[in-house]
Amino acid sequence: MISRDDCARRDGEDALAPLRDQFMLPEGVIYVDGNSLGALPRATPARVAAAVRQEWGDGLIRSWNDAGWITLPQRVGDRIGALVGARPGECVAADSTSVNLYKVLSAASRIVRADSPSRRVIVSERQNFPTDLYIAEGLCRDLGWSLELLEPAAIVARLSQGRGADVAVVMLTQVNYRTGALHDMAAMTALAHAAGALAVWDLAHSAGALPVDLNGAGADFAIGCGYKFLNGGPGAPAFVWAHPRHAGRFWQPLSGWMGHAAPFTFRPGYEPADGIGRFLCGTPAVLSLTALDCGVDTLHAADALGGMVALREKSVALTETFIALVDERCAALGFAVASPRDARMRGSQVSLTHAANSASTDGRSHGYAIVQALIERGVIGDFRAGAPADAHGPALPDILRFGFTPLYLRFVDVYDAVERLVRLMETGEYREARFNKRSAVT
Amino acid sequence: MISRDDCARRDGEDALAPLRDQFMLPEGVIYVDGNSLGALPRATPARVAAAVRQEWGDGLIRSWNDAGWITLPQRVGDRIGALVGARPGECVAADSTSVNLYKVLSAASRIVRADSPSRRVIVSERQNFPTDLYIAEGLCRDLGWSLELLEPAAIVARLSQGRGADVAVVMLTQVNYRTGALHDMAAMTALAHAAGALAVWDLAHSAGALPVDLNGAGADFAIGCGYKFLNGGPGAPAFVWAHPRHAGRFWQPLSGWMGHAAPFTFRPGYEPADGIGRFLCGTPAVLSLTALDCGVDTLHAADALGGMVALREKSVALTETFIALVDERCAALGFAVASPRDARMRGSQVSLTHAANSASTDGRSHGYAIVQALIERGVIGDFRAGAPADAHGPALPDILRFGFTPLYLRFVDVYDAVERLVRLMETGEYREARFNKRSAVT
Repeated sequence: MISRDDCARRDGEDALAPLRDQFMLPEGVIYVDGNSLGALPRATPARVAAAVRQEWGDGLIRSWNDAGWITLPQRVGDRIGALVGARPGECVAADSTSVNLYKVLSAASRIVRADSPSRRVIVSERQNFPTDLYIAEGLCRDLGWSLELLEPAAIVARLSQGRGADVAVVMLTQVNYRTGALHDMAAMTALAHAAGALAVWDLAHSAGALPVDLNGAGADFAIGCGYKFLNGGPGAPAFVWAHPRHAGRFWQPLSGWMGHAAPFTFRPGYEPADGIGRFLCGTPAVLSLTALDCGVDTLHAADALGGMVALREKSVALTETFIALVDERCAALGFAVASPRDARMRGSQVSLTHAANSASTDGRSHGYAIVQALIERGVIGDFRAGAPADAHGPALPDILRFGFTPLYLRFVDVYDAVERLVRLMETGEYREARFNKRSAVT
Repeated sequence: MISRDDCARRDGEDALAPLRDQFMLPEGVIYVDGNSLGALPRATPARVAAAVRQEWGDGLIRSWNDAGWITLPQRVGDRIGALVGARPGECVAADSTSVNLYKVLSAASRIVRADSPSRRVIVSERQNFPTDLYIAEGLCRDLGWSLELLEPAAIVARLSQGRGADVAVVMLTQVNYRTGALHDMAAMTALAHAAGALAVWDLAHSAGALPVDLNGAGADFAIGCGYKFLNGGPGAPAFVWAHPRHAGRFWQPLSGWMGHAAPFTFRPGYEPADGIGRFLCGTPAVLSLTALDCGVDTLHAADALGGMVALREKSVALTETFIALVDERCAALGFAVASPRDARMRGSQVSLTHAANSASTDGRSHGYAIVQALIERGVIGDFRAGAPADAHGPALPDILRFGFTPLYLRFVDVYDAVERLVRLMETGEYREARFNKRSAVT
């Protein structure tokens, strides 16, 4: 049995423990939802305030140069790129994940239409985050392509033994937002390439959560989210990466002035910037990029302590501890681990199912009530509703999601979270949880 | 001759004068560049700080509901909509101007392809802001359409007497970013409709600068900028409007989850939200939208004082005063007014040319040096380089731009700006102005 003292001892031995001081966490809260919205870095309020008061208020229009606003997408992009295996100049921070996915899928589709026009299928995962599927669906509609949604094992089969000859793009999120299941980027990219397809990766739940090596994997395009493990703040700008072998080949259709080779000559006639610059579109969102920059700082603070490798090691230790505690103390309460038990196949989150879900008499799952009651008791995770079986696969269970950000979570937090969950279930208190209408942005 | 006392007297009689207190303007600066980046509202620092510290820091993920983050695009959109003749529910704030233009041009193209597929030309103005032209150019390339760039008078001819039968969309910026020339939105929309084309309007330099009546004009789609006359901060989110007759008809290709009818059911299969909601794409940029909300407040503060009509009246009085002073005092110094002299055909800016430009011996225009020297002396306007003649029209002169935001500019500011310009020219001081490399985001 794991004791709280065991956890306190591990915290005492944790070389990354001081990184927690970088964040402003509310007193008494155990925040296991950093996979949805990262916590506030301590440096952010002052940096944003300076951007507002001094740079905007005093500098006014002059700050586009004097404060370096105009190069923020490249500067922040490079620092994110360093976390995901991109070289300097390969990554920019801009727009939203959805918009960036549209850019890279459009770019990928141009390459495929030029090189192998008979390929007209985008393959993705049925449980991929819906906005990715919606964007791909829209593009397929316009191109006359189709979007094929498969379970992970079926994707491998779809790309093997010559069955992938019609596949244009394999579009995957590296870490599944529901289950936390982690794809092997290098292997899946190699499989896509062997089938003649391009590999587009969404790093929403992996950038800042685990080591990613885009160049090492030979990926084609990638996008990712700024407000989860990068701690960039609500609705932070996203990022976009293109492998240099593709970056300069086609321009993407959101050909706004910031992607122009010389935006300040104000000439009609679009001339795309070299490389990743052409994946920019409109005017940089300075205040949001400033906050994102502070978020990215919190990860680079680990550079001298082993960087993403050390963070991943702690993340795995945290999720292993959580799983062990759930097995020990929560199995009898109806909980089961819905995430892969092999840490090599798991991101920085653990999802649980609760067996009583189906016994609910009021049409609501107990999972929802449990998560609400936990939040009221200071353990902030989240709930993702299941779905009935459909054309793409079997029914999906309701999920209780717990994200483990190694930058600010302690082993005692993991212990206390489970402790509060156990107490809640043993007392039946969760049945009184308020059913606030609640939607959370993953 | 207009004296400084005349100007001071007008300020004393100006019912809108107290609105200036809403802004934090640097001591000694006369800011005539609010058409490029609006000044900082006094309320913004505290509101943004609260969004960072309390909403994000303390509320964490809960603030999507508890702080109303999730409805920010609609709430801010409605308040912008009220300034431009949109009814509640017709306008949302999101993404950049360029991205929103892509959305509405895509939507417009779907309507045209369904209703009159032989129309395959987008007509625009040669001096339209380049990002608009780049976005249209990209879309035309993908659709096999063409983009035709004309001078304003030629646009009227192009749409008249049956010559517009191939025109799909007329895409115009209501106020020209270089000259400040103002299109008659109702007349031009009627002309486009009479020719069977749709009218798409960019309100970048008109929203918050003058009364706009999108519904009254019967426009089809509109977009606009949050960081100019709306004072939303550097790179603030933009806005997008669709006439209700079109809003629900097609979905636009940036079909991200925030445009879904039920984003939090997390189901594959895009079902667009009713109406303007489907013009949303990714997760709302909360910090930027909060700042934009404060900016929009500064305009609604005029509601009880006559609103946009009163603001426009003051704006016209400011630009008339500037033109009169330039005529009186600067004509002999080589300056000429490049903006329409008829206020009904002019936005809230006045552009000047300087005759000595062509006499420059070092390859740089004097206009650039003059603007730099003016900025060093606290009068912040900006410079837009001219362009040689090209296939679309004759050479364009270098321009010195002066934007007049009625919310915070006084008549004495106009006087003092001209006074400093005159002194600069008479002493020749501008010749010593530093030639900082400078690019300004319009």
